[in-house]
Amino acid sequence: MKNWWSDPISALDQQAAEQASARQAELTKPPRSLGRLESVAIQLASMQGVESPVVEQVWITIFAADHGVASLGVSAFPQDVTAEMVRNFSRGGAAIAVLAKQLGATLEVVNVGTVSAIEPLPQVLDARVAAGTRSFVSDAAMDHSHLEQAMAVGRDAVMRAQQAGADLYIGGEMGIGNSTAAAAVAAALLKQEGRVVAGVGTGVDVDGVSHKSEVIQQALDFHHDYLNDPLEVLRRLGGFEVAALSGSYIAAAQQRLPILVDGFISSVAALLATRIQPDARQWMLFSHRSAEQGHQRVLEAMQAEPLLDLGMRLGEGSGAAVALPLLQQACQLHREMATFAEASVSQA
Amino acid sequence: MKNWWSDPISALDQQAAEQASARQAELTKPPRSLGRLESVAIQLASMQGVESPVVEQVWITIFAADHGVASLGVSAFPQDVTAEMVRNFSRGGAAIAVLAKQLGATLEVVNVGTVSAIEPLPQVLDARVAAGTRSFVSDAAMDHSHLEQAMAVGRDAVMRAQQAGADLYIGGEMGIGNSTAAAAVAAALLKQEGRVVAGVGTGVDVDGVSHKSEVIQQALDFHHDYLNDPLEVLRRLGGFEVAALSGSYIAAAQQRLPILVDGFISSVAALLATRIQPDARQWMLFSHRSAEQGHQRVLEAMQAEPLLDLGMRLGEGSGAAVALPLLQQACQLHREMATFAEASVSQA
Repeated sequence: MKNWWSDPISALDQQAAEQASARQAELTKPPRSLGRLESVAIQLASMQGVESPVVEQVWITIFAADHGVASLGVSAFPQDVTAEMVRNFSRGGAAIAVLAKQLGATLEVVNVGTVSAIEPLPQVLDARVAAGTRSFVSDAAMDHSHLEQAMAVGRDAVMRAQQAGADLYIGGEMGIGNSTAAAAVAAALLKQEGRVVAGVGTGVDVDGVSHKSEVIQQALDFHHDYLNDPLEVLRRLGGFEVAALSGSYIAAAQQRLPILVDGFISSVAALLATRIQPDARQWMLFSHRSAEQGHQRVLEAMQAEPLLDLGMRLGEGSGAAVALPLLQQACQLHREMATFAEASVSQA
Repeated sequence: MKNWWSDPISALDQQAAEQASARQAELTKPPRSLGRLESVAIQLASMQGVESPVVEQVWITIFAADHGVASLGVSAFPQDVTAEMVRNFSRGGAAIAVLAKQLGATLEVVNVGTVSAIEPLPQVLDARVAAGTRSFVSDAAMDHSHLEQAMAVGRDAVMRAQQAGADLYIGGEMGIGNSTAAAAVAAALLKQEGRVVAGVGTGVDVDGVSHKSEVIQQALDFHHDYLNDPLEVLRRLGGFEVAALSGSYIAAAQQRLPILVDGFISSVAALLATRIQPDARQWMLFSHRSAEQGHQRVLEAMQAEPLLDLGMRLGEGSGAAVALPLLQQACQLHREMATFAEASVSQA
């Protein structure tokens, strides 16, 4: 059976990129003096298929889910925090909610699988695949059907974004234990040992990181013979929210919707998406380099150079939201600066 | 005679910093997971003397002036561009004008000394000290009275900002030849040779950089015996807009107005300000690491770690304007995120 995620990825618009590039050379500034802001404007032009791109309608979906591996004490926070934070997103008290409001972005939260059901809440969709994943140290985290359902949850979010006329898509995640799951996926995809990718996550100490490494290594050893297929890596070691993110990135690349990737966990989902569909990579912009230990290797594997390096490690899409004004400023400068001819400024 | 710039610098409010720090620990996120955004909020709290700082009323002054050294062919652009860009700032076509408008910031341009007078223009103040500086390879760039006048032009801008209720001050500059003047000042202050600090500026080629190095070295040799006093360095090698920027930074630090420093030329002015008044340093936040060769050394001399590194080298205060949303987001998160208690989220 051919799944939707194998459908072709859209090509970038090279003509729009050339037009945008030509426009940059005409603006009243020394050539290339806006640095990354110039290349970002040109990239967005090639994604949106226009000379002057815009980033005004921004869609943010946060996928929340629980992880069986949390029972092994890999997080600094109790598992209840996943659901508690879903409520905090809904009430506007979480970082991403504050940022989304200030940015005028649409924020929705999708429950892909918390341990317990959550009461109906504003801006929160219930799409629970199961009551959390299974602990991956001795079992596959998900059934095949769970994997497909979770990926489809991600695709559905992108379809809603598309329907709403979004110019850009940001995915985020919440799930106690998910930096351990993401690190396990990263280790499997990058063929690294657990200790290379295990990080502090929400803030475990040195012993905690060491424990995480061991848990990840145990899982890598247990699943060893099945880790050459990215979908199997995702099913065995991932989480519902990681699967939803991966699905959303592939769908966005199919639908010509530019993607702004957040930090470590989102980047692992992005790496999975590019292993499933290599061309998805060209629809991704990378927002920030996380303080999480494994992030740099994951970025390198995608030749991704993020815009920010602020020592953030919060998740929730917060790093992408913090980087968003850079994309907006890049577009505004590209669109609104005068050309040398318009301003009667002498050229070099 | 004791000049105004020797008047004491205000102390930061340590109690406000402690209150802000305590608040950060209560917000619904893993401790320190917002990275630099947390320290920025705490720094701004200590400057503004409040637990929850705001960056809403932003004041941007661009100082424009011409440089005698431009006659030696150190820039990729003709000298007319200084005045042409002043008109472009006024009409809204320049990068900083586009950014200021989008940010809702006040933008004023002060002509501290273009070669020819400029017709009256909206948002442009005429404070011409002289028709450009003298070429510093064989003379002091400014008279003592010119230096004092130019520094006072900077102080006056800060007084207007203060009067208008600004929460934050950004200084910018425009002046064909000013990356050469700034590099000469940097070399003198850092006791480096010309070639160490000469960069591409507006975009000269390898031969151009080599020529700039020689011009700078010639000036360093000519003024060699007089470069131990920062004010003499500024008077002999600087420009009117660099002097105005330095004056503005000292005045802002005296007036308790937080400063966001732009790129290479602004950082050289900031270094001068800290050499004249070391305590001025604590009122400065640094926005970005410029692509200009000498910038990193100037930043290191002030132990400054800028927020952004985007390969920008435009000047005009544009890098500071691009970094501004990070400060605003830091304040919004600090002020608006829920605490663990408010949100009933379990702590680690």
